[in-house]
Formats: sequence, C-alpha cells, structure tokens
Amino acid sequence: MLLCDIGNTSYHFYDEERDYKASVSDFEPSILTETLYYISVNADLEKKLESLVNWIDLRPFIDWENYYETMGIDRVMACEAIENGVIIDAGSALTVDVVKNGVFEGGFITPGVKIMQDSYARISPRLDYSFNFDLDLDKMPKNSRDAISYGYLRLLYSEIRRHDGPLYITGGDAHNMAKLFDDVIIDELLIFKGMNKILEKAELC
Amino acid sequence: MLLCDIGNTSYHFYDEERDYKASVSDFEPSILTETLYYISVNADLEKKLESLVNWIDLRPFIDWENYYETMGIDRVMACEAIENGVIIDAGSALTVDVVKNGVFEGGFITPGVKIMQDSYARISPRLDYSFNFDLDLDKMPKNSRDAISYGYLRLLYSEIRRHDGPLYITGGDAHNMAKLFDDVIIDELLIFKGMNKILEKAELC
Repeated sequence: MLLCDIGNTSYHFYDEERDYKASVSDFEPSILTETLYYISVNADLEKKLESLVNWIDLRPFIDWENYYETMGIDRVMACEAIENGVIIDAGSALTVDVVKNGVFEGGFITPGVKIMQDSYARISPRLDYSFNFDLDLDKMPKNSRDAISYGYLRLLYSEIRRHDGPLYITGGDAHNMAKLFDDVIIDELLIFKGMNKILEKAELC
Repeated sequence: MLLCDIGNTSYHFYDEERDYKASVSDFEPSILTETLYYISVNADLEKKLESLVNWIDLRPFIDWENYYETMGIDRVMACEAIENGVIIDAGSALTVDVVKNGVFEGGFITPGVKIMQDSYARISPRLDYSFNFDLDLDKMPKNSRDAISYGYLRLLYSEIRRHDGPLYITGGDAHNMAKLFDDVIIDELLIFKGMNKILEKAELC
C-alpha cells in the first residue's frame, strides 16, 4: 500500500518498505495507477488530486472532534501516531504538539530553523549567523551567535521540557534539533504511522 | 544637557525634561549647535557624526570588559542603568539581558514582534495573524492565532521568569509585552538613564 504526505515543495511517499520524495514542480501524480492514500497541505494541488480516483484523501476519515479546523493535517497525523508524549515537527514551521491518553492536548507553532535564521538576518547583517546547536543551554550568552541561538533553541528546549512523556521528533531539521535532547526519538515516518492508524480505524486496510 | 539614542530609523532625544524623536531620513544633525552626547547603531551616520565636534559619541567611555564587542550599544546602556534585574528591550529585535550586582551576566536576542509576525506570514498565509497579548499562558493552544502567539510569547515569558530580580521593559512594543507580566517596570528612558550614568562615571557632567 502506498501512502503520500504532500507538502508545498514535495511529495513524500512511503510503501511500507521505504520512503522517497518527488518534487511538486516535476512530479505528475496521474502517472500512478495504483490506489494510494494521501494527506496534503498544498492548496494548489487540491483540484488535480480530487480528479484522480485512485488518490484518496484521508482528511474525511479523521475524527476532528479532538483537533481544530485550521490545524495542519500533518500535525494531526503525527498526533494519531502516538498515545502519549510530545511531538516536534521541525519543518518550515516548527510545531510542538502534546498528546495524552491518545487525545491531542494542544500545541504551538514557531518559525522553523531556516525562516528563524532569515528573520535575524533581516533585523541586521550583524545577526546573520547559522544557529549553534552545540550551545551550552545553561549559560547566558555573551556573543552574538550564541545570543540568537539561545533566543530560539533554549526557549524551545525549556517549553518542551515542561511537558511529560516521551519526546518524538520528525521533519527536515529533526537531526539538528535532536542534539538539544538526550532522550529524543527521531522518527521520520511518524506521519505515515498516523496515516496507517487512520486507515485501520476506517477499515480501509 | 541633550542626549541622543540613534537607531536605524530615528534619532531619539532626551533633554532631562522630555524625550522626542526625529526621522533619520529628514533630520540634519548639523543644525544643532549645543554639545550633545549620543550612542548610535546606525553605521550609515557614523562619518557624518564624527565630523561634527559638538556630537560626542559615548562608546569610548564604556568599560567594555563586562560586555562583548558586537553587543548593541543600546543594550549596554540599558544594562548600565540598573544594578540588578532583567531588561527587555522590545524593538525590531527583542533583547533580554540579565544584570547582577551591576555586572552584565549575559543575554539573548529574538526577533521583535513585527518581524516575528511577518515570519509566520511568510511560512503560510494561514499563519498571518497579529499576536494575542491576552493569551492564557497556562493553556496549550487549540487554534491557529493562539498557537503562534504561544510559540512566541509563552516561550519568552518562561525564559524571562527563570531569572531573578526586578523586570524592566523598554522599546516600541513595551506596552504590549508588559501585558504578560504583573510586576514589570515600563521605562521608556532606561537607555538615557544608562547614558547619564556613563557621563557621571566619565566626569563629563
């Protein structure tokens, strides 16, 4: 069975053996003839995908009672994947969601690593640094690079540590962000695990 | 005695009775003939101001041993103004600095309110909101506006609360940010107070 998580720039496929990506600008979804289940945050592709009978949107199968209407479907799927804990999805946005006894408790959004670095550069060329992921989180900074790294990474770390349960991390910057925590579970397939759970609940597989 | 704090967009004057601003693009500094003391983060104005004998830069009078070379001079002056506590300067960058027994302990930088809101809007038009400064900081968000507000305001709040001593706030967004704290001292003149202390130490007044 083929699953697909569609973002603004890429199709991310998972066939239960491996995952692979295709660019939104290059890939033509109608070339696939098998049945596949997808989620999408890409509004531009909505009409095209609706017209393809073998591309099945998983959105209608979610019990939205636990979530909110404008919540990204990728966040919802990651929450469906776990019973308890905290999920960091470090993409163009960095989202942090809390799940307790299988129920979404709430979550927050910060800009992702790249957009955050760009924001500092826009304030002043003197703040145009890449983050120091090896920052000493317990020391107040006394140089510019650490001052901006702390302003993003330490603040995130403290908030995330306020919540109980195992910590999962997914998304393009998962490996960098994981350096901050000594007990984090990196899981690039978390969203697909949630999609599989929705398929089981809906008896689609 | 006239003091001036020069940013990228404005001259901020203080004559010990009142403070007022002039736009960098409109104001001609050579029209002033009295002696005045200034600090500036505006590199474009450096040569012009150096050529005016009555404009005296306070930078050389600072004891830089306690600070770091690339630290904004406005942050240094705010630190000089207090003996103990935490200073938030909520401008185009939002800086948080800690002072203990008159010594700078370190500080960090996040994007200011406007640039942070812009960053969310750049990620997605679905995140294009103004922050909710009346947010319930103790509740994990379940809507988009609160999710981005929490991602900025709650994270800042928690970090600031980790540090002891009185909390001072200055800068253009001081009044909005002050809503988060029940015991904050809003002081629009903090930088000028620091400048006055430097003048006293250097026996310039």
